[in-house]
Amino acid sequence: MDPIAELITSYFELNSSTIDELDDDGTEPSPLEFMRYVARNTPFVVRRGAASWPAMKTWSVPFLRDTLAEHVVNVAVTPNGYADAPTAGPDGEVIFAKPWEEDQAFPEFLDYVVQQEKCQLGSSAETRYAQTRETTLETAPMHRYLLTTTSLENDNLRHEYASVFSHVHKDIPFARIALQRSPEAINLWIGNSHSVTAMHRDNYENIYVQVLGQKHFVLLPPLCQPCVNEQSLKQYNYARTDGSFQLVEETLEADNQGQTENDNTVPFAVWDPDRPTESQTTYSALAEPMRVTLNPGDMLYLPAMWCVFLALGHI
Amino acid sequence: MDPIAELITSYFELNSSTIDELDDDGTEPSPLEFMRYVARNTPFVVRRGAASWPAMKTWSVPFLRDTLAEHVVNVAVTPNGYADAPTAGPDGEVIFAKPWEEDQAFPEFLDYVVQQEKCQLGSSAETRYAQTRETTLETAPMHRYLLTTTSLENDNLRHEYASVFSHVHKDIPFARIALQRSPEAINLWIGNSHSVTAMHRDNYENIYVQVLGQKHFVLLPPLCQPCVNEQSLKQYNYARTDGSFQLVEETLEADNQGQTENDNTVPFAVWDPDRPTESQTTYSALAEPMRVTLNPGDMLYLPAMWCVFLALGHI
Repeated sequence: MDPIAELITSYFELNSSTIDELDDDGTEPSPLEFMRYVARNTPFVVRRGAASWPAMKTWSVPFLRDTLAEHVVNVAVTPNGYADAPTAGPDGEVIFAKPWEEDQAFPEFLDYVVQQEKCQLGSSAETRYAQTRETTLETAPMHRYLLTTTSLENDNLRHEYASVFSHVHKDIPFARIALQRSPEAINLWIGNSHSVTAMHRDNYENIYVQVLGQKHFVLLPPLCQPCVNEQSLKQYNYARTDGSFQLVEETLEADNQGQTENDNTVPFAVWDPDRPTESQTTYSALAEPMRVTLNPGDMLYLPAMWCVFLALGHI
Repeated sequence: MDPIAELITSYFELNSSTIDELDDDGTEPSPLEFMRYVARNTPFVVRRGAASWPAMKTWSVPFLRDTLAEHVVNVAVTPNGYADAPTAGPDGEVIFAKPWEEDQAFPEFLDYVVQQEKCQLGSSAETRYAQTRETTLETAPMHRYLLTTTSLENDNLRHEYASVFSHVHKDIPFARIALQRSPEAINLWIGNSHSVTAMHRDNYENIYVQVLGQKHFVLLPPLCQPCVNEQSLKQYNYARTDGSFQLVEETLEADNQGQTENDNTVPFAVWDPDRPTESQTTYSALAEPMRVTLNPGDMLYLPAMWCVFLALGHI
């Protein structure tokens, strides 16, 4: 048997493809319990683990609209909800499509997201998603020493959305004590069910907390790398012109010696576990994706280097 | 740059090649501190961490000789101290040499080891080493899920040497609490400075405690696998005939269908970090071996899948 196939098969024989759920009563793990999951590089969910956070009571569409009435936010806009994702390019080949980014007044952005969810905009309407720029597209092989780097992805919550930051906890004590550091970043993501994040992975530990709505996660362990069909994709940007979108190939930038990079491609997974027979590799069928849906107050530990594919549910 | 070379180089840029030494006062780590090392797959030493074990006071050559006077032990015998090691075979090619094994009265075995150390036997004398049979020669790639399996290698101490077992701790509390299990095995190894263990690795966590004498460890992290020049070696056994040793090729055993296995080779590392320019691969020079010498009372955490090369010092 092919040793890679054997490795993947024996992994799924020995490990459940159902995510561990810690106690039902919302009790967070101790630092030692958390560290056991970090050591095993295994995700878990704590249902209602963040139920006591002020944001669970205070945050709502009207509250956020009022509190952030004067804020301008960076919004990623795509015609179809797929930002930073493999997409059919102008010539029919698969390319990597980056969203059109623009600054919008927060109330305008939020109203759009809500109206689209209520089907008031028609099916061809663009998708808007507030996020920080994804500057790191990590595709490096698993470096275990990077496990010492932890993160809660938090730049935009401490900056763009600072006025609502006090309603979420500044750190997660069990993670801070176990990993001996505060989160490097805390991010807030706002979108509707039209937003989908293509498969990607981060080289740091993540803890997600759902505040409003639902989020559907599909997770694959790092050794499923041969299943996800990573390819070198040319980078394109969506450009909004005359109300419609065009994909424009990213121009190569000259460095300070006047030299132009000769490659604008990024390595990216093109296999989608929800369409398992398309774009598959000989290993894709061996993968057993772990699926979990987060509801308000739920907390998810997502280990470094796991492949994540996610979709937002209704808000 | 070759991605494997890049991976190994960046590992050693980010990680010290000096072993972590915990507090000098013999204080063991807490379960959480230990689990951080397990998660980072990083060894550490606790100098004098086992200094309070009764064995540190009671064990000596005369004590062991008296206590085990009626015991018969399994002894691995080689002409040169290299058991389970790559060796020049009868035809000049590198083969894998397994020791001659025989049962000896413990006092006879111990006297031999001590006399050889005192140079009373001449330089051509055989080397004797008491150990349990090495039935698992692990060369699988790193399976992180195997980290949930822990061990202190303990069959022979609970069986062959049961009468001295009460002088060593039955488990290591910080490891038992962190890993949620008692050791699978506790082994006692007795030899002299002529004994060397060729590079190998185990797929479970190990904690070594030095009671008498010294042991010199050379350690390499799992990603140095491309440095160690693993080759398929034919297995030979030392056979003692007329007082001298001969290497005899291992015969293939027929299974219960009468089929004979067609391969008596084992994959084994032939690169020796102490002779770095011999049998090297293109990656060997990138490895930065971690060296540590254990003295009586010292405790070493050796993570799963690290490559270990070790030599005994004087007893």
